[in-house]
Amino acid sequence: MDPSVEESKREVSLTLFSQTLQTPMASSTTEASIDQVFPGHNPGKSQMAERTHWVLNAPVPPGPWRELVDSIGKTGKKFQVLREQPMSKNVASILKAIFPILVWGKDYKITKFKKDLLAGLTLASLCIPQSIGYATLAKLDPQYGLYTSVVPPLIYALMGSSREIAIGPVAVVSLLLSSMIQKLEDPVANPIAYRRIVFTVTFFAGIFQAAFGLLRLGFLVDFLSHAAIVGFMAGAAIVIGLQQLKGLLGITHFTNKTDIISVLKAVWRSIPHPWNYHNFILGCSFLSFILIMRFLGRRNKKLFWLSAIAPLISIVLSTLIVFLTRADQHGVKILKHIKGGLNPSSVHQLQFDSPHATEVVKSGIVVAVVALTEAIAVGRSFASIKGYHLNGNQEMVAMGFMNIAGSLTSSYVATGSFSRTAVNFSAGCETVVSNLVMVITVIISLELLTRLLYYTPTAILASIILSALPGLIDLNEAYNIWRVDKLDFLACIGAFLGVLFASVEIGLIVAVSISFAKIILSSIQSGMETLGRLPGTDMFCDVKQYPMALKTPGVLITRVKSSLLCFANANVVRERILKWVTDEQEVDAKGNVEGRIQLVVIDMSNLMNIDTSGMASLEELHAKLASLGIELAIANPKWQVIEKIRLCNLVDKVGGRVFLTVGEAMDTCLPTGMA
Amino acid sequence: MDPSVEESKREVSLTLFSQTLQTPMASSTTEASIDQVFPGHNPGKSQMAERTHWVLNAPVPPGPWRELVDSIGKTGKKFQVLREQPMSKNVASILKAIFPILVWGKDYKITKFKKDLLAGLTLASLCIPQSIGYATLAKLDPQYGLYTSVVPPLIYALMGSSREIAIGPVAVVSLLLSSMIQKLEDPVANPIAYRRIVFTVTFFAGIFQAAFGLLRLGFLVDFLSHAAIVGFMAGAAIVIGLQQLKGLLGITHFTNKTDIISVLKAVWRSIPHPWNYHNFILGCSFLSFILIMRFLGRRNKKLFWLSAIAPLISIVLSTLIVFLTRADQHGVKILKHIKGGLNPSSVHQLQFDSPHATEVVKSGIVVAVVALTEAIAVGRSFASIKGYHLNGNQEMVAMGFMNIAGSLTSSYVATGSFSRTAVNFSAGCETVVSNLVMVITVIISLELLTRLLYYTPTAILASIILSALPGLIDLNEAYNIWRVDKLDFLACIGAFLGVLFASVEIGLIVAVSISFAKIILSSIQSGMETLGRLPGTDMFCDVKQYPMALKTPGVLITRVKSSLLCFANANVVRERILKWVTDEQEVDAKGNVEGRIQLVVIDMSNLMNIDTSGMASLEELHAKLASLGIELAIANPKWQVIEKIRLCNLVDKVGGRVFLTVGEAMDTCLPTGMA
Repeated sequence: MDPSVEESKREVSLTLFSQTLQTPMASSTTEASIDQVFPGHNPGKSQMAERTHWVLNAPVPPGPWRELVDSIGKTGKKFQVLREQPMSKNVASILKAIFPILVWGKDYKITKFKKDLLAGLTLASLCIPQSIGYATLAKLDPQYGLYTSVVPPLIYALMGSSREIAIGPVAVVSLLLSSMIQKLEDPVANPIAYRRIVFTVTFFAGIFQAAFGLLRLGFLVDFLSHAAIVGFMAGAAIVIGLQQLKGLLGITHFTNKTDIISVLKAVWRSIPHPWNYHNFILGCSFLSFILIMRFLGRRNKKLFWLSAIAPLISIVLSTLIVFLTRADQHGVKILKHIKGGLNPSSVHQLQFDSPHATEVVKSGIVVAVVALTEAIAVGRSFASIKGYHLNGNQEMVAMGFMNIAGSLTSSYVATGSFSRTAVNFSAGCETVVSNLVMVITVIISLELLTRLLYYTPTAILASIILSALPGLIDLNEAYNIWRVDKLDFLACIGAFLGVLFASVEIGLIVAVSISFAKIILSSIQSGMETLGRLPGTDMFCDVKQYPMALKTPGVLITRVKSSLLCFANANVVRERILKWVTDEQEVDAKGNVEGRIQLVVIDMSNLMNIDTSGMASLEELHAKLASLGIELAIANPKWQVIEKIRLCNLVDKVGGRVFLTVGEAMDTCLPTGMA
Repeated sequence: MDPSVEESKREVSLTLFSQTLQTPMASSTTEASIDQVFPGHNPGKSQMAERTHWVLNAPVPPGPWRELVDSIGKTGKKFQVLREQPMSKNVASILKAIFPILVWGKDYKITKFKKDLLAGLTLASLCIPQSIGYATLAKLDPQYGLYTSVVPPLIYALMGSSREIAIGPVAVVSLLLSSMIQKLEDPVANPIAYRRIVFTVTFFAGIFQAAFGLLRLGFLVDFLSHAAIVGFMAGAAIVIGLQQLKGLLGITHFTNKTDIISVLKAVWRSIPHPWNYHNFILGCSFLSFILIMRFLGRRNKKLFWLSAIAPLISIVLSTLIVFLTRADQHGVKILKHIKGGLNPSSVHQLQFDSPHATEVVKSGIVVAVVALTEAIAVGRSFASIKGYHLNGNQEMVAMGFMNIAGSLTSSYVATGSFSRTAVNFSAGCETVVSNLVMVITVIISLELLTRLLYYTPTAILASIILSALPGLIDLNEAYNIWRVDKLDFLACIGAFLGVLFASVEIGLIVAVSISFAKIILSSIQSGMETLGRLPGTDMFCDVKQYPMALKTPGVLITRVKSSLLCFANANVVRERILKWVTDEQEVDAKGNVEGRIQLVVIDMSNLMNIDTSGMASLEELHAKLASLGIELAIANPKWQVIEKIRLCNLVDKVGGRVFLTVGEAMDTCLPTGMA
């Protein structure tokens, strides 16, 4: 006989057997008929025993140390593969793993380069004004923004695996850096000391990023949940916008704080003084110009370059206007001298023995995580559009090394910029070569064009930064989060309000705290569901989720709505089961004999683990139920759970009533005619 | 036809239908034969569709606010019941609820009183020496320990529901109080200010305890896990023991710190001075006496009173010895004057406007939780021996009011003592009347006998405290925790070492932190299990737990080992599934065509919830799998999960492939002949 037929016969006979238990009136007919179909079938009782045997004799699960070793072991395996290969092949494959450019560089063609060239030039035209603007946001001289657009993208082009990402300074990281570091050193009074701390923080951020990648700790970046990032970004956008009021209104004395109340107070205090409206008019007109260009670019996809080039046009035009009208003599603030030439070395500016060492390391880790979060979000979303896979750990290593290299060459923390990556993508970039084109353009500008920026009004920088902010506020996504998960929305709004009314770091802390509090709350919840049989099946489901499910009289089938039966919920769970049972007994006292509970089945299918408090609680529950004459049965314990049940001898205590399914528990424990 | 037969027919036909999909070779035979058994059976396809319909059309689950309101609503119901009754009945039932003594007092008989009288006298003989000893541990004058054994047990007798618990001062709470308060005020230099803070802390502890009970926040007490308590108690026992070295060695200048290193240093520093060995010899001999008596009491259950009365005998004998030999003139330290008389009022000593107000409130909450934890553990364990139920919230209210009353009458924090409750139980107490007998005995002692304690050596108090400590160290339980749950043991040992090497509060903080870190770790773990079909069933289980389960070639059935798919694990889960799929495809490239995965089934049966990051991750996974030509199916989503899947339109995105069971997903999605 074919084995699969044999198999199916066994299954049929088993299902029919359970039927006989469930519907005793029909049993004789059914058994008789099935005997006609498959003569000599197994009655199933022995099968059920065999299944309980399977449950009770599972292999010993790995302990917590073993699991830890296993997860680290995955990294170990790679090295093992390497060791088995010859030396020369090893070097080649290691180099290829570190520098992906060696892999795709071989197939690089001139047709691709044409596209990359165009994309790179478009990118540079947006990058130069943004870099200068973000440098002022980071309270650094404009050239440091340009430096940051040279070395980091260069290193990333060699080591990174994203094809579209545009590397350089970004608004949120610039704000974060300045808001954290100006607490340690005043950027106006003591710019040299401030810069030293900036480079040191950049160095540590790079070290942490590389370490995350090398140690495969990429999941740490996930701790900033999506909802928290949405709120954080929106809050940061508003804070950045408020900071631009300084440039736009031409205010000289501004607050160092970033929260909305301090900034509005500072603005209010400066209003009564006679203020120069030229700055404001200049900034607002060019902001309108950039926004109109962007609107046109959105309406007609072919004109997208309008939005990319508008900031550069604004700078050129406004500089010309100021130069021709000599408006700087009438109170329009200008950039004045920008130091030209390539990145100078900043190796000797790193400072590891400063009195702020712990603060610097702490800032490094915060900046590292925020920068990585933004870069990986940007990289992943464009990689998924183009349909290739981005290795998170590889990316972190690349980001780490680019920031370490940056910190040695007068750059501050660089990461992937969302707005520029979108422009790069729209301009049709093929590979990271577009970044290289951008780097060369920035180098040329640094060498030749910095002198031309003398008359550039600072209000224009403010309007360029302001024009990039709407992209950071995602109202649609916030609404979506509200719709799907109210508690996630709480994390989102917490991050938003934290950034807005306290500080950038407090916003981050609030978001992470709410996210973790949410995990704890949902893990230790002591909610219970009662299960009923779905008609026509042997499945037992939550009667609230499936209103058609039928409860079996005399049986309480219940499941904990958590993956842990632990100290925080075990007592409540036990009390609730006992309360249900005693409530039913009270009903019973009024004469409803049918309702008397004879059996409590705990479906453990969603419990991942039980701790010692949970086990103690189960033992107490069993003792209490036994004293009331009620049987306790356990169904479908998972691996760690059955191991603990065995270790505590609970199997013997409950009289071996441990089953694979709720159905089998019911069939075995209930007297014939009850189920 | 009987409906149950009809029912069973449908089930059989369905199982057989799935058989036909799984074993196509046998299908014709099986279908034909079942047609003979039940002519005109349903082919099951429509049933499967109906079940998917059930899954997809579950009612909307309650939101987080609704769940919160529901859990508070349970308290509301009680009041509703009250409102429906006539006024007089209401007052009676409220009074009965607040004072359980009104319920059991009616049936109290003289036979019970005889037993309670004997138990109460035994209890008093242990309580008086312990109270004096614990008062010195709390850095208060001896009479305050006796005061604490008067008012709190009196109030508890009226309001409490435990029958065996012995109320009064206990070692751990005394240590905790002194270690927290002596940081605010020096008990030696400024005893009056110190005492004011003690009473204020006691008052706040009572307020918190009563509030926990009234607001049904009893679960807060559970946050100190069983494992943490075992470690904490053992650490506290050693710390208390070390404190007794002062009395035992007759040291005058001792450290205020409680950690083992400071205490041993203080002892070491006092050794070179000529020390009086009389204290030590006296203390050690009576310690041996008490321990031998206890040993005898354990060997012979009838002699248990020996262990109960040994401390009192020690006090009487040692006082006599000192009085007769005038040993106090040879360096033996004695108690000297103890103020007699009943509890004085301490209403005016409560201090709510002190500069330490926040510290006092904080200490109040810590002491409240520790005291409740001990009392409820003691009460529950003895209630379960006698087989009655203890209402946690009722107990908390009783404890709260007894401590509030205590704080107004010169008592410090009282709770249920483990050692005295055991003695009370062994002495055969029937009700809380034994506590009342004890109270009367203590009152008589306070009025008449305090003068007799003038010559009592302090070393005896140290030996009485030391003799009670072994009961706090439960090595068996610690070993059991190690055996069952290694991470629980970590919380246990963390609490132990924290108390021993840092301070009592740090031990508590360490224990709570480890316990919650454990919850977070196990909730966000990104472990995945692959499922296989258990032979002869339609169940799919973890292939590691059930080595006999068979994987279906071409299908990846997987389940997340967590109850949450959230920001912290969603990315890792997605990457792991994609890696499995691509790994299989690599194998495929080597020619193994059978292994090519065509279907990924995610069994969501243990996921309680998904957040927005989790949903985004699922959507990305689906898009990626679709681009690889692989179908994604979802099986058995729970209530909150299916709601979110619906809200995000994921049902449409996965082409409606949402099923009640993994088996149905396989049957529907795989081409005939694959499953």
